Amino acid sequence: MKKVVVIGGGTGNFVVLSGLKNYDLDLSAIVSMADDGGSTGVLRDELGVLPPGDVRQCLVALSHSSRLMRGLMNYRFENGGLGGHSFGNLLLSALEKVTGSFEKAVEEVGKILSIKGKVVPVTNNEVRLKMILKNGKTLEGEGEIYTSSEISKGFNTIYLEPFPTANPRAIDEIMNADLVVLGPGGLYTALIPNLLVEGLSKALRDTKAKKVLVLNLMNKKGQTNGFKASDYLKEIKRFVGKDIFDYIVVNEAEPARELIEMYAEEAELIEDDLVDDKRVIKAKLIENNKSEYSRSDVLAKHRALIRHDPEKLAEELKKIVDSL
Amino acid sequence: MKKVVVIGGGTGNFVVLSGLKNYDLDLSAIVSMADDGGSTGVLRDELGVLPPGDVRQCLVALSHSSRLMRGLMNYRFENGGLGGHSFGNLLLSALEKVTGSFEKAVEEVGKILSIKGKVVPVTNNEVRLKMILKNGKTLEGEGEIYTSSEISKGFNTIYLEPFPTANPRAIDEIMNADLVVLGPGGLYTALIPNLLVEGLSKALRDTKAKKVLVLNLMNKKGQTNGFKASDYLKEIKRFVGKDIFDYIVVNEAEPARELIEMYAEEAELIEDDLVDDKRVIKAKLIENNKSEYSRSDVLAKHRALIRHDPEKLAEELKKIVDSL
Repeated sequence: MKKVVVIGGGTGNFVVLSGLKNYDLDLSAIVSMADDGGSTGVLRDELGVLPPGDVRQCLVALSHSSRLMRGLMNYRFENGGLGGHSFGNLLLSALEKVTGSFEKAVEEVGKILSIKGKVVPVTNNEVRLKMILKNGKTLEGEGEIYTSSEISKGFNTIYLEPFPTANPRAIDEIMNADLVVLGPGGLYTALIPNLLVEGLSKALRDTKAKKVLVLNLMNKKGQTNGFKASDYLKEIKRFVGKDIFDYIVVNEAEPARELIEMYAEEAELIEDDLVDDKRVIKAKLIENNKSEYSRSDVLAKHRALIRHDPEKLAEELKKIVDSL
Repeated sequence: MKKVVVIGGGTGNFVVLSGLKNYDLDLSAIVSMADDGGSTGVLRDELGVLPPGDVRQCLVALSHSSRLMRGLMNYRFENGGLGGHSFGNLLLSALEKVTGSFEKAVEEVGKILSIKGKVVPVTNNEVRLKMILKNGKTLEGEGEIYTSSEISKGFNTIYLEPFPTANPRAIDEIMNADLVVLGPGGLYTALIPNLLVEGLSKALRDTKAKKVLVLNLMNKKGQTNGFKASDYLKEIKRFVGKDIFDYIVVNEAEPARELIEMYAEEAELIEDDLVDDKRVIKAKLIENNKSEYSRSDVLAKHRALIRHDPEKLAEELKKIVDSL
C-alpha cells in the first residue's frame, strides 16, 4: 500500500484527506501547531492546551464513523460561555487534560472516530507564530497574521516562538512516504508554519518521496496579493531551501462569476504563469456541491466560497500515486 | 435475567448502578429531569437543552468502557468560559443539539461508553422543580431547593412546572421490573422529583415488581432535619399514595467519628426507628475507600464525605434479587 503524507493546516488538509480516504492508501496528516484563532485560541489561552482546531479537522476527514459523529465533532456551540467552541476542540482539550498528553488525546479521538490513517502534530512544543513586517510592526499569533491586510506590503521575518523541534513521528512519516502533498492552505498561516519547525524542511529535501504542491485557488487579499503560481513556488523554496516539487496540481476550472464577485474584496484568483513547466498537472478542481464540512461547520461556510472539490482533487493525486 | 430498575437522581443512582453493573442483571436507571444547578443549570439556561448532569452520572456508572473514557466524562474544566462544566454534560448537550433529541443523545453516549443497561429520563418535558415554603416564599429550581436551609421549617407544596407527563419508556420499565430500587438520594431533590411526574406513582403502585427503599445515610441540614427512617417512609408514601416498599435497606455501620464531626454543620446521621419492621435489612454499607467517582469529579469530593459503598450495597440488593 502506497504511503501518502499530507502537510498543511486546517481546511486545506481536510479537503485533501477527505478525498484521499476513499482510496486504499496508507494516509498520514502532518498538522501545523500554530493555530491560535477562534475557539482554538480561547482554549490555548484559558486552559493552556495545545491547539486542537486543525487536528480536529484532520481527524474528522479521516473518520470512518457515522455522519452523526462527524457532525458532532464540527458542531459549534452558539451561546453563552461555550459560544464559538467546536465540540471536537473541547473533546481534544479535555482528553489532553485527562491524559496529560496532546498526542495521546489525538490517538484516543482517532479511536472514537474510527480513523483510517494517522494525524501527527508537526511539533509537540507550544509555539506561537510571529511575523515582523517591513514597517517594523510585529504580528503576534496566527490569528493576527490571518486577519492582517499588511503582509503583502512586505515582511522581514516569520518564525515560531519558542523555536520548536519536530515531532520525530512527523519526520519518520516524511522519510518513509511515497508521496508528500503540500497544500492547499494559507501560505503564511497553514503551509509555512510547518516548514518553520526544525528538521521539517531537511526531511522534505532528503526524503525519496515524490513531492506535490496543490496550488491554492485564490490569493487572500492583504496576504499574497498578486501572487502567481511561480510566486508560491519561490516563497516555499525560500523556506525549504530547494525547489522540491515533482508535481504541481493546478486548477483550470473557472469559478462561477457571481462567486468571484462575492469574493472580490477578500480574494482574487491566482494566475498560472507556469508555462512549459512539465511538472504542472491541470484539472478542473473546483467544488460545485457543498461538502459535508462546508455544511456542518458554521464558520467554514464563511471561509470557503471557492474551494477544491475533495473527490476531484483526490482523483488527480491518486493518478500520481498510481504512476509511482 | 432479572430486571432491576433504579430510580433517583445523580450521585445516589451512580452508587447503586456502579455496584449492580458487576452482576448479570437487566439494569435500567430512571432519572430525574429536575436538575438545574451548576454546569447543568448553565447549559439549560444558555443552550435550552434538557438537564444532562444526572443522566451523565448514570451513563458513566453503567459504562464498560475504559477508565480513561469514564474519567473523561466526569472531567471538569477549571478555567474560563468552560469553567465548571463537566465534559460529559457538554457531550450530551452537543448531541442533543446535533440530533434534535435528548433521548437520542443519551442513546448515542450509551454506545460511546459501551453501557450495559438503559438510562431513561423520567420525562422528556422541560420542567423546573418548585417549592412553596410555609413562610410563603417560593424556591425556584432544584438548585435553589438543594441549597435552601429553610425546608425543614415546613413547606406547603412541591411541584414540577409545567406539569410533565411520564416518558412511556419509564413506565414500561417499572411495569416490567422484578425489583425497583428507590434511593439513596436527596429526598426533595432526587427522589420526589421523580414521583411528581404524572403516571410514575401509579406505576409504582401497580407494578408487580418488589420495591426496595435504600435509606439515606444522612439528613442534610435545612432539608430533612431530625428525620428518622419512618419519616422518610411517611414522606414518600405521601407522594406515591401508598406504602409500597417490600424491603428497606438500612446502614448499620458507624462512620468514622472525625467524618461525622467534619460533616456536622451540613448533615446528621439518620436514626433508624423501624423496630420490628420485618422489611428492614441491616448491613454495613459505608464506603471506606474513595470510589472512582469520588476521585474523578472535583465536586463529588465535596458532596460525598459519608457515602454508600457501591459493592456492599449491590451485594445486599443482589441477595434480594436472588430471593425473588
